[in-house]
Amino acid sequence: MATNIGFIGLGIMGKPMALNLIRAGYHLVVHSRSRGPVDEMVAAGATAASTPADVARQTDCVITMLPDTADVELVVSGAHGIVVGLKAGAIVIDMSTISPIATERLAKAVASAGGHMLDAPVSGGEVGAKAATLTIVVGGNHAAFERARPILACMGNPDRVMHIGPSGAGQTCKLCGQIAVSGALAGVSEAFALAEKSGIDKARVREALLGGFSASKVLEVHGERVLAGNYRPGFSARLFQKDLRLVHETATANAVATPATSVVSHLVDALVAAGGGHLDYAAVATMWLEKADGVFETELR
Amino acid sequence: MATNIGFIGLGIMGKPMALNLIRAGYHLVVHSRSRGPVDEMVAAGATAASTPADVARQTDCVITMLPDTADVELVVSGAHGIVVGLKAGAIVIDMSTISPIATERLAKAVASAGGHMLDAPVSGGEVGAKAATLTIVVGGNHAAFERARPILACMGNPDRVMHIGPSGAGQTCKLCGQIAVSGALAGVSEAFALAEKSGIDKARVREALLGGFSASKVLEVHGERVLAGNYRPGFSARLFQKDLRLVHETATANAVATPATSVVSHLVDALVAAGGGHLDYAAVATMWLEKADGVFETELR
Repeated sequence: MATNIGFIGLGIMGKPMALNLIRAGYHLVVHSRSRGPVDEMVAAGATAASTPADVARQTDCVITMLPDTADVELVVSGAHGIVVGLKAGAIVIDMSTISPIATERLAKAVASAGGHMLDAPVSGGEVGAKAATLTIVVGGNHAAFERARPILACMGNPDRVMHIGPSGAGQTCKLCGQIAVSGALAGVSEAFALAEKSGIDKARVREALLGGFSASKVLEVHGERVLAGNYRPGFSARLFQKDLRLVHETATANAVATPATSVVSHLVDALVAAGGGHLDYAAVATMWLEKADGVFETELR
Repeated sequence: MATNIGFIGLGIMGKPMALNLIRAGYHLVVHSRSRGPVDEMVAAGATAASTPADVARQTDCVITMLPDTADVELVVSGAHGIVVGLKAGAIVIDMSTISPIATERLAKAVASAGGHMLDAPVSGGEVGAKAATLTIVVGGNHAAFERARPILACMGNPDRVMHIGPSGAGQTCKLCGQIAVSGALAGVSEAFALAEKSGIDKARVREALLGGFSASKVLEVHGERVLAGNYRPGFSARLFQKDLRLVHETATANAVATPATSVVSHLVDALVAAGGGHLDYAAVATMWLEKADGVFETELR
């Protein structure tokens, strides 16, 4: 596999992921909207390129890590997009969380230009990006996945770099994870609301529930956040709102009803509208607890 | 503490729990609606009593393990109920899952008769009852709990015999657990529905999700049931329906809305109405997957 890798999108997640590739010995050609992170990467040994097409011209593997579907569409298939400069046989790895449906469309555009596109969204947040312990679920051609695996393994836990299925399957799997998290979070929120209104110690309830069938990562981690009233993200409500919008679009396109997830989605919408978009999304529990007043102004610890 | 213990209700859960007390060296005075289990217990060394009042006359501690609120009300405060024969200072331990509100009422009746009532519902099912590994969450007077603890520890995991709060708090905590399980189960069901309709391997999705923030006991255990289509209970949909009815009553009485749990509750109602009440409640996932047809006639393995 190429030792030159393109990396487009150097935000909270992208920058530490790109740095892990440099540490692993790859030479990076980078592009980002903001000048600051590009300069940092150049100082670390990377080369800057002025457009996504220029990145593609210099590399056999281009990684994108961008906020939303429209950003990836512009970077991949826009006027100065990756497809314009793509080398024959090159791999495009989109590690953003975006629409599985748009992903299938973009994969076709990349294939028409003679390359392969993999969708490889990540879980594990900023902490996992820095520590290279991300979970990476991948959709697309299996042979292309095997070529990309050593690169992905530098950014994630090698045991948790998994091929899920064809193009779009990585994105769909990521959304399935957000659905499962939403359900668990709703359960914890409603349980805490009942405990609180009944005058029972929520910490004691959490402890009892962690030992039984009701145990979950969400009860453990978000349960602790709710008990402490500490909503320093983690993962912000605004980004979770974006993921739940993708869930709704994708579920609807597949004729699937997600009534429990939509309860959470609506309360996250209300949380963001009320001014809580910057808080960890576990703060949605306050929407059930009717303790939202004042919490948005809380100084983050 | 007394070495004579009363035990009323020798069903699927009650009988193995009572046998564990005999194994621990207690002498039991038993009563049950069905003759069969009473004969079995007498063969194991217990004494039979003809009414709950007669049980109470011979013991300082009476345990009840009954299907629903009305059963416990009849056995505790009916014409031939425990209260009629209660010794001064005796403890009544209700290990059924019933209404926290009715529990508070019954605890007052027991207190008026000179005794103490503890609510001590269990989790862990038939397997936990046989293996004496139940989780037992307790509400009521703390001193009475300490007197009862050695007895409870013969039926459950001693580390998971927990005092939660005042009378009713054990029942409320048990319901909080069922709420948390409902949310997690909704999340898993909706995630699997999206995976299935998208044509992605659900087993692969489950594996990916178990490694991340979406991990839960429900994804692990019920996820496996759904993948295998094996709904041998476990815990039946009919009993889960009863618990979710208690959740709704109790939440409403405390002015708490549980919209996500009510999604699950309505689908469990539909599952039972369609003929699936005898299946493990994980079968509710089929209501999202639209694969319910035919599954109710499945031979249990």
